[in-house]
Amino acid sequence: MAAASRLAARSRPASRPNPAVGCIIVEDERVIARGWTQEGGRPHAEAHALNQLEKGGAQGASVYVTLEPCAHRSERGPACADLLAEAKPARVVIGVSDPDPRTAGDGVERLKSAGIAVDVLDDAAARESLAGYLSTKERDRPFVTLKIAMSLDGCIAMADGTSQWITGEEARAHVHSQRARQDAILVGGGTWRTDKPRLDVRLPGLEDRSPRRVLLSRGFPPDGVKVINEPEGISGLEDVQYLYIEGGAGTSSSFLAADLVDRLEIYRAPIVIGEGKRAIGDIGLEDLSDAHGRWRLVEQRQLGSDHFAAYSRVT
Amino acid sequence: MAAASRLAARSRPASRPNPAVGCIIVEDERVIARGWTQEGGRPHAEAHALNQLEKGGAQGASVYVTLEPCAHRSERGPACADLLAEAKPARVVIGVSDPDPRTAGDGVERLKSAGIAVDVLDDAAARESLAGYLSTKERDRPFVTLKIAMSLDGCIAMADGTSQWITGEEARAHVHSQRARQDAILVGGGTWRTDKPRLDVRLPGLEDRSPRRVLLSRGFPPDGVKVINEPEGISGLEDVQYLYIEGGAGTSSSFLAADLVDRLEIYRAPIVIGEGKRAIGDIGLEDLSDAHGRWRLVEQRQLGSDHFAAYSRVT
Repeated sequence: MAAASRLAARSRPASRPNPAVGCIIVEDERVIARGWTQEGGRPHAEAHALNQLEKGGAQGASVYVTLEPCAHRSERGPACADLLAEAKPARVVIGVSDPDPRTAGDGVERLKSAGIAVDVLDDAAARESLAGYLSTKERDRPFVTLKIAMSLDGCIAMADGTSQWITGEEARAHVHSQRARQDAILVGGGTWRTDKPRLDVRLPGLEDRSPRRVLLSRGFPPDGVKVINEPEGISGLEDVQYLYIEGGAGTSSSFLAADLVDRLEIYRAPIVIGEGKRAIGDIGLEDLSDAHGRWRLVEQRQLGSDHFAAYSRVT
Repeated sequence: MAAASRLAARSRPASRPNPAVGCIIVEDERVIARGWTQEGGRPHAEAHALNQLEKGGAQGASVYVTLEPCAHRSERGPACADLLAEAKPARVVIGVSDPDPRTAGDGVERLKSAGIAVDVLDDAAARESLAGYLSTKERDRPFVTLKIAMSLDGCIAMADGTSQWITGEEARAHVHSQRARQDAILVGGGTWRTDKPRLDVRLPGLEDRSPRRVLLSRGFPPDGVKVINEPEGISGLEDVQYLYIEGGAGTSSSFLAADLVDRLEIYRAPIVIGEGKRAIGDIGLEDLSDAHGRWRLVEQRQLGSDHFAAYSRVT
């Protein structure tokens, strides 16, 4: 399931509006097909994998798929549960059941009635690879990553606002590769006006991966930019599974205060600024003990002279 | 020389007022004696190593010593250069020449006139192991470590001053083990009055290693505490090779502003505080580009859920 979850990562974010799913078909302990959701959402991962086999090639095999196979027929293609029922594998192992009411449980039922053994795991790696999709279905909002580039002492700029540059080239390239995996990027109105950020992906071959732009602002929306007035407005963003927040401090703070951040990504430069602009302002914390146990370090690495650390919200 | 430098670490800080020196004697590619400066500074490392051999046992051997052997006879014992001249090794390899005018060059000369081959290396590991001693001799001040325990967003306390606890038990135990290696600990007057810190070593077996306490303050000195009025006052501290600064923010900032910090030790808890007390205030930085290239990450590790990172000043 870990391998299928890694396959699924290839679909992010191109599978939009569909979830990024991975599928592996195994026969006699040998992988005979590997599929992932294709660009624009079709074919689905199961269909992509089955297409690699001759008719009947999956008979008696084991299918590992990160998300419950869909049970709803659509104009865009057949239901995966039907495709699998027809392909007659001996067993289907499912990472996470689908919270979509059009499938929830029906996918499993349809496989079982075709005489296929089904295991539903609630697997952590599968869950993580589907975090954006599951968030939209279970919490009616995207999975939110808050990115902050700061100095050792927690400043994101000089007191006069100068912030070019805190971090070095490797860190900035890493930010662009992270942007390429998002559906939308959000900044606050102040950052928009002051920094005029392009918020695009400037990496060779990934330029067309630039996510949609969203502004947290009470002002008038600029051309081609969606505006929300408060953090809770992210629930209304259509087809956004993954949202990336890039500041400034007021925006970061308001999302943290609203408890709407799932992942914190911090790029830390080995510099001391002193009395600069702080990364985060008031988040409504009343007691120091309440600050503990909320974030767990899940990833860290050195990027040139900067340090990258990602923290997951402890649910 | 790296091994001799590690040996020297055993002497810190007990060798005070003498430098912490390490010495290894090698014969036929085999270590036959290992010495380090003993408690209170005597015997010196060379004497400690030679004492492990029978008379004449070092004849023809190679001696590796981190610091140039002393050339000045004292009431407390003979000069190491004389001891070595008498022991007649074939060769003495010296990590760093001694800036002390009573020895500088004389130690080497005395060995050479006894017919011993001498190499003086200016070795990085030896230099680092002698950082405190070299600082007092070369810069007339101790080697200064600034320690800060902070949140992800650079806060050292809540806005009301509450700071117990930012970091966890492992990090706090690590601080105590770092204290045990210092000659003195310094805090600001505000921290002294507010937190009433004990600034002692609370580790089993190391309780007697508690360093002397120094206050940066314009006020009246409490009993048993030395007071300096400004960061530059550290030059007047007697027998302090290693000074450890433990805040608060004003003190940290004034030492950084005076460019009197050699090593930054940051303990970072995976918590976000928001509008708390910031770790560092004005340090007189005028241009963001001036902040770069001053600190180099030299050590990092996880301490429970906290992250420890040490940065050396880029000279």
